[in-house]
Amino acid sequence: MPKNAFYAQSGGVTAVINASAAGVIETARQHPDAIGKVYAGRDGIIGALTENLIDTSQESPAAIAALKHTPAGAFGSCRYKLKGFEQNRAEYERLIEVFRAHDIGYFFYNGGGDSADTCLKVSQLGAQMGYPLQAIHVPKTMDNDLPLTDCCPGFGSVAKYTAVSIREASFDLASMCASSTKVFILEVMGRHAGWTAAAGGLASVDGQDPHILLFPEVAFDQARFLARVQQCVDTHGYCTIVASEGLRNAAGEFVADAGSKDAFGHTQLGGVASTLAQIIKAELGLKYHYAVADYLMRAARHIAAKTDLEQAYAVGRAAVEAAVAGKSGIMMSIVRESDSPYRWHIGEAPLDQVANVEKTMPPEFISEDGFHITQACRDYMLPLIAGEDAPPYGPDGLPAYVRLKNVPVEKKTGREFALR
Amino acid sequence: MPKNAFYAQSGGVTAVINASAAGVIETARQHPDAIGKVYAGRDGIIGALTENLIDTSQESPAAIAALKHTPAGAFGSCRYKLKGFEQNRAEYERLIEVFRAHDIGYFFYNGGGDSADTCLKVSQLGAQMGYPLQAIHVPKTMDNDLPLTDCCPGFGSVAKYTAVSIREASFDLASMCASSTKVFILEVMGRHAGWTAAAGGLASVDGQDPHILLFPEVAFDQARFLARVQQCVDTHGYCTIVASEGLRNAAGEFVADAGSKDAFGHTQLGGVASTLAQIIKAELGLKYHYAVADYLMRAARHIAAKTDLEQAYAVGRAAVEAAVAGKSGIMMSIVRESDSPYRWHIGEAPLDQVANVEKTMPPEFISEDGFHITQACRDYMLPLIAGEDAPPYGPDGLPAYVRLKNVPVEKKTGREFALR
Repeated sequence: MPKNAFYAQSGGVTAVINASAAGVIETARQHPDAIGKVYAGRDGIIGALTENLIDTSQESPAAIAALKHTPAGAFGSCRYKLKGFEQNRAEYERLIEVFRAHDIGYFFYNGGGDSADTCLKVSQLGAQMGYPLQAIHVPKTMDNDLPLTDCCPGFGSVAKYTAVSIREASFDLASMCASSTKVFILEVMGRHAGWTAAAGGLASVDGQDPHILLFPEVAFDQARFLARVQQCVDTHGYCTIVASEGLRNAAGEFVADAGSKDAFGHTQLGGVASTLAQIIKAELGLKYHYAVADYLMRAARHIAAKTDLEQAYAVGRAAVEAAVAGKSGIMMSIVRESDSPYRWHIGEAPLDQVANVEKTMPPEFISEDGFHITQACRDYMLPLIAGEDAPPYGPDGLPAYVRLKNVPVEKKTGREFALR
Repeated sequence: MPKNAFYAQSGGVTAVINASAAGVIETARQHPDAIGKVYAGRDGIIGALTENLIDTSQESPAAIAALKHTPAGAFGSCRYKLKGFEQNRAEYERLIEVFRAHDIGYFFYNGGGDSADTCLKVSQLGAQMGYPLQAIHVPKTMDNDLPLTDCCPGFGSVAKYTAVSIREASFDLASMCASSTKVFILEVMGRHAGWTAAAGGLASVDGQDPHILLFPEVAFDQARFLARVQQCVDTHGYCTIVASEGLRNAAGEFVADAGSKDAFGHTQLGGVASTLAQIIKAELGLKYHYAVADYLMRAARHIAAKTDLEQAYAVGRAAVEAAVAGKSGIMMSIVRESDSPYRWHIGEAPLDQVANVEKTMPPEFISEDGFHITQACRDYMLPLIAGEDAPPYGPDGLPAYVRLKNVPVEKKTGREFALR
């Protein structure tokens, strides 16, 4: 009997992580001699620890195919990082107990940097704890911050969302600025790196809007920023801005926090966009509007990038093929062959070099004045937002996203496990 | 020589107002015996007052056709309401001066309620001030608040944006709620009426998410709201909410303002979503996220509703046909024939019954508990978000929106006019 496989989604979900799930499940179904059933963890690795497994073999081929056009995590995801072997041996022993009970020999983990660390530890279960299995990491993160891969599945789609949204808002401002709003700020996710804000720059052609991008990598200088805003309004009649939520000042404080404490020292709610808007209103007297994209951007399957979708599927497929070929302890990666025409293939990277390494924007991607992206960044990023792949829409005018049956696998360990 | 036409965009722009412009211009071109050139006002009626006219005959048929897939106002819009004849006679005399100089006999005004009032006054120039012209209103407003029309072009597309966005965010929450965010709030535009928030309810099927809609029409009751949020989290694991920016408490105060003053009485920035989030965190201790759609929703041509687009074009076309047939002082309207199958045709409404009347949500569209929409509302609204009509995308992965040449018409009055 071939061993079963365990698949789990981890960390913040994306518009295309389910395409990776489809890649894993469809490919595993093509290898019945090597892989038995694919069990998915309900709510990620938590599902393995609590023995809440989902039997994906109960889902029809059509339902699994529909994952390719369904955002978010169909089996549930979680933020839960395994500690080291020495710090919480009980967790690893529990994993082995569950995996043994369900005859699991393959571990496919679909996540970002923290998850790569977990996947690495699981790949070492054989050497460390006498339960060998093949662990392969399927990369996913809208933050685009994994090393040893040209890009991360999930990023291209948030990048496309950002570029499309700020282009549309810029058209709006251009229409109205003569008598109404002069400044518009789009706040995007990204605590540590400016990849997503950078994507807004793709909408700018020949120096057109958006006019200003604000990255966590560049210390916020209020005077320089205000001068640039005023200059844009003087020149173009308006100014559109994409700001990373993680923008910091020279002291390293989040701009969203700085200066927004009340008289008792309580931090006020409100993100970077509302803070910047307040500054612009107070110092320049300009009428503003702002939007906060938040989860809308990472869930926006309706405007996903085709390239991103193909890569998300491909890393899932390749992970299974690598496992069937006997590999373990690796992350599937995207290897770029050329920018234009854009060519790529799937490669692999050793997990011990991936885990806990964060890739920020290279300095050569940020313009000298710190307010925009360079041509090198455009060359890198444009292929990643290329192509459209709209989901099917129902007669109700809404995307027909699938909800799986998620049939539970009968528990076998006869034991509960308390999460820490 | 046939008379020329003046066309202007007014008020907040939408994803489909340019489709109305295309309807006007393309139809006028089909009637060369009746209509000379179509001059557009640069930045709306301001362009008429300042004699900044745009010669749309300089635009190619392809460029005019591309307006159908381009959001916002291609000629610029403005917020500028003409006063009464007695209060500012100089403005009307100036309009007549400019219209006479450019031989304008038709006035097509593309806007909402305030604009209908302006259009009405212009239609009375003949009787009041001896300069007869035919004035026809082309309805447009994302707020859906015009009377005597079943719906307003521009609304269907923001409705679709809202429903798609909250469905996608709800999938995200469902994935993550086991270990992360429990409550998500989407803040939508709508100061006076809850039409846009109601549209979020279209994503809810059989009582599924979004769980709560908050309308300006229903006084906000914090205790009842918190109880419902907790109930949703207990039942479903999470709670998704669509909130109108114009939500008010029983005292009629905006929730976005109430309780967000600092110790000095300064009003803090931040809209209704951040205020609600703060309340939820403080009272229920639940992890939240929120998004603010703002202009993104009204500019989102990439997800426009096909029905909306067709109606926007149709009212522009019909306005010109009505003018050619000798009519004046009317607004083109959408007349619903049936819900299912959805059938409609273009009608007309007398402008004096349209101007300055605001249509709010009928009580029978709001569920008894005040937190959702009724079946009657769904029956009304679902046809309006039906169908997709994606814009063409360029090789850069971005929508190929058109920027017109906007060639100015030579000035003839020899006189400046100072706006008040």
